[in-house]
Amino acid sequence: MSYDAMMAFVRETRALSEVQGRLGWDQETMMPRGAAAQRAEEMAAMESVLHARRSDPRLADWLADAVPEGDVQEAQIRQIRRDLNHATRVPAALSAELARVTSLSQGIWAEAREASNFNAFAPTLQKVVALRRQEAEALADGGDPYDALLDLYEPGATAGQLDEMFGALRPRLVALRDRIVRSERQAPVMASEIPEDVQMKLTAEVATGFGYDMTRGRIDRSVHPFSSGSGLDVRITTRISPDAPLESIYSTIHEVGHAAYEQQVDPAYLLTPIGGGASMGVHESQSRLFENQLGRSAAFTSWLFGRLEGLTGTGGLADARAFYAAANRVAPGHIRTEADEVHYNLHILMRFDLERELIAGRLAVADLPEAWNTRFARDFGLDVRSDAQGVLQDVHWSLGLFGYFPTYTLGNVYAGCLHAAMRRDLPELDSALAAGSAAPATDWLAEKVRRHGGLHAPRDLIERATGAPVSEEPLLAYLEEKFGALYGF
Amino acid sequence: MSYDAMMAFVRETRALSEVQGRLGWDQETMMPRGAAAQRAEEMAAMESVLHARRSDPRLADWLADAVPEGDVQEAQIRQIRRDLNHATRVPAALSAELARVTSLSQGIWAEAREASNFNAFAPTLQKVVALRRQEAEALADGGDPYDALLDLYEPGATAGQLDEMFGALRPRLVALRDRIVRSERQAPVMASEIPEDVQMKLTAEVATGFGYDMTRGRIDRSVHPFSSGSGLDVRITTRISPDAPLESIYSTIHEVGHAAYEQQVDPAYLLTPIGGGASMGVHESQSRLFENQLGRSAAFTSWLFGRLEGLTGTGGLADARAFYAAANRVAPGHIRTEADEVHYNLHILMRFDLERELIAGRLAVADLPEAWNTRFARDFGLDVRSDAQGVLQDVHWSLGLFGYFPTYTLGNVYAGCLHAAMRRDLPELDSALAAGSAAPATDWLAEKVRRHGGLHAPRDLIERATGAPVSEEPLLAYLEEKFGALYGF
Repeated sequence: MSYDAMMAFVRETRALSEVQGRLGWDQETMMPRGAAAQRAEEMAAMESVLHARRSDPRLADWLADAVPEGDVQEAQIRQIRRDLNHATRVPAALSAELARVTSLSQGIWAEAREASNFNAFAPTLQKVVALRRQEAEALADGGDPYDALLDLYEPGATAGQLDEMFGALRPRLVALRDRIVRSERQAPVMASEIPEDVQMKLTAEVATGFGYDMTRGRIDRSVHPFSSGSGLDVRITTRISPDAPLESIYSTIHEVGHAAYEQQVDPAYLLTPIGGGASMGVHESQSRLFENQLGRSAAFTSWLFGRLEGLTGTGGLADARAFYAAANRVAPGHIRTEADEVHYNLHILMRFDLERELIAGRLAVADLPEAWNTRFARDFGLDVRSDAQGVLQDVHWSLGLFGYFPTYTLGNVYAGCLHAAMRRDLPELDSALAAGSAAPATDWLAEKVRRHGGLHAPRDLIERATGAPVSEEPLLAYLEEKFGALYGF
Repeated sequence: MSYDAMMAFVRETRALSEVQGRLGWDQETMMPRGAAAQRAEEMAAMESVLHARRSDPRLADWLADAVPEGDVQEAQIRQIRRDLNHATRVPAALSAELARVTSLSQGIWAEAREASNFNAFAPTLQKVVALRRQEAEALADGGDPYDALLDLYEPGATAGQLDEMFGALRPRLVALRDRIVRSERQAPVMASEIPEDVQMKLTAEVATGFGYDMTRGRIDRSVHPFSSGSGLDVRITTRISPDAPLESIYSTIHEVGHAAYEQQVDPAYLLTPIGGGASMGVHESQSRLFENQLGRSAAFTSWLFGRLEGLTGTGGLADARAFYAAANRVAPGHIRTEADEVHYNLHILMRFDLERELIAGRLAVADLPEAWNTRFARDFGLDVRSDAQGVLQDVHWSLGLFGYFPTYTLGNVYAGCLHAAMRRDLPELDSALAAGSAAPATDWLAEKVRRHGGLHAPRDLIERATGAPVSEEPLLAYLEEKFGALYGF
């Protein structure tokens, strides 16, 4: 009885949370610019309702009385207890203020980025950092504030643990990059522009090929691509630039990884605590595996090359092999979302270190651009010539998402593990990819990972799926083999 | 202190209500079809939150303690008391069930209309009618259930009062129509198709000409055009059919009347109980005045003719005078939203009578199509050959909006009053309209009507604006003069 009453209440809360999420989607895709001030009040009101429900005193009573039957009910209760713990530690006024400020700060960030002017964003970011630090301290309850934020996105992970994993990744990534830079082979660059309408058509086609169900989703455009929602209404966005033709395609494949994950969770879990992805890291494993290991494979790029050939020309590339090399071209660049697989994690490691310093109060917001630019020159060998191509490029910090970036690299590590296991099970995968379909991979992931939703802890889920402990080794082996072959060493 | 605490609470409730409204907008414009079941749960959850807030026991305490200062605070309190009264009389479970059922029923209606099959919609409509009747009985508290519904949309109006007004309208409308039908003059018909993209461009242009602020709104497409939201985020939709080229333009002008009204309410009232339109009738006066008295005037149609001439050709019409006649062509037709000014109110009077019978339980849902078709043949001299062009044409009943239709004719009556007063004050109006701008009218309405929001009772507001008692006489005089001149009697 207690369990059922609690689940009815929690289910309603999840429904409201979906509404809040869709409001966020609307803000990024549809909202008129002049509506920002009113929207901030709407978001604060939703947050205040949700906070009250998440910290409702009845939850503690229900939890004390509930007798779970079976592993699903146990997982639901574990998740509810976790959420309640998070909710009760943060004062309602702080949550509401965070919602209000981050709703406004996103627009201010977008304008500052447009003008490439960090100073226009700094006072707002300062507020966001201060509020988020307060929240982290409340959540940490005496522990490390940054770990408390990290735990929101990746249950059980700690900065110390990640430091160790990242420490093992870094030297081999740097060594790999150095060999590529010293290599005499140069990857070709795709030269052509692709008209916007052709790109939109291709994104829809590619999304379907990777298992996105358009009857329960839609594709729109936004400044920064994202996936939003769960269950029967999971929407993605893409960014279209005529002169960066592959960006919209690969960002779409990436977001489809997130969206198809949510769409393939067991329908029995709809609008329940375990009805979404297991963690941000597992989520990112789905998107990165789609984008890179599958989307940038020789098999899939051969199909994509044929499609582009038919639609718009091949940008001066002689054959599918050259296109494969172009799609996997390694080059230091300023923008994380455009980074190749070898550099990508270096972008993340840098953000991880900077945001830990910000939250610890060891780095002032005013000093952030200089810290960014110095570190960037060291890691990438490039000057940062504008805030837009530097510290302002990502939306995350404007939303207060500190502790989120490291889950990207954790996701890459999980993706490495899953890909190795999947390749052992699916000898037919490359021939499907060569026909534009990721169906065997989608089915494998649905069965091994996606349908379980939040039933298992993240690391446990990956280990069950692969039958092996989580390790950075498969990712590194995959990268070294693929790029060794491409660059001839 | 009580007043301030109450207003903070009420303001948050209004913000949540805006969120709920935007969810409705999303459902009609953006939502993937497969999301309907989840959306119903989301709507029910929002309704449950809103119902709890609208009937929160603290409101009664605050109302008892509040000492209003000035007419604004008095109006706020009057509105809060009214809303509390409505909310506390309807059980929460009934409200939630109504929200759930009407969220689903809208999709079922849309599919039934598509298939022109009333039977596919009847069981759902039966549920909606039954639930709505329960609600009406709870609201009426011993009084007339239909009046209780009417009062939700038009505070203070009663069916008896409307019967009297409609009784005065009907004979002169019928007489006017008969003279037109017997007239030897025939209005020309516009023959050409207008491509969809040209129509979308024109709707945006016309919307701006009638004072719609696109920085605080947007135009999308939906099955049935509507306006949604208040304050800084007021969105409209339109319906585009290439072969009914004027429909999108006039439905847009209509919705802009609603939207500009909401946009022009005093910003000091933002997200407060008086921060929206005074009633549905006053709302409709704004949209109908824009659409008909201004949009179909000789002055504005001369501008529109020139615009169409430049863009796409004039559909075989020789000159602006012929276009004016075509835009005001009187002909009996099946579809209310396509009806001319003379027939429009006959559509409404028929729905008013039918829905009163439904709510009173004197007409069964199963018998509705026959009742509709019989009455239609009598009033319009036309057979109804399909449910889609008959009883299924309007979205309203699927949403449970009984008591809403009569406010359309009431709005026409108010529009007649306002138009007569406006013409006395604005000798320059026709020259602005002939240049595609309704600015003098927009300014006049903003000052006399719109900025006041819900400060005054509906009828009182119109009488203050015009300096005369509300009467159907100005509407009838306008129609008789305009159509007498057009049809030569």
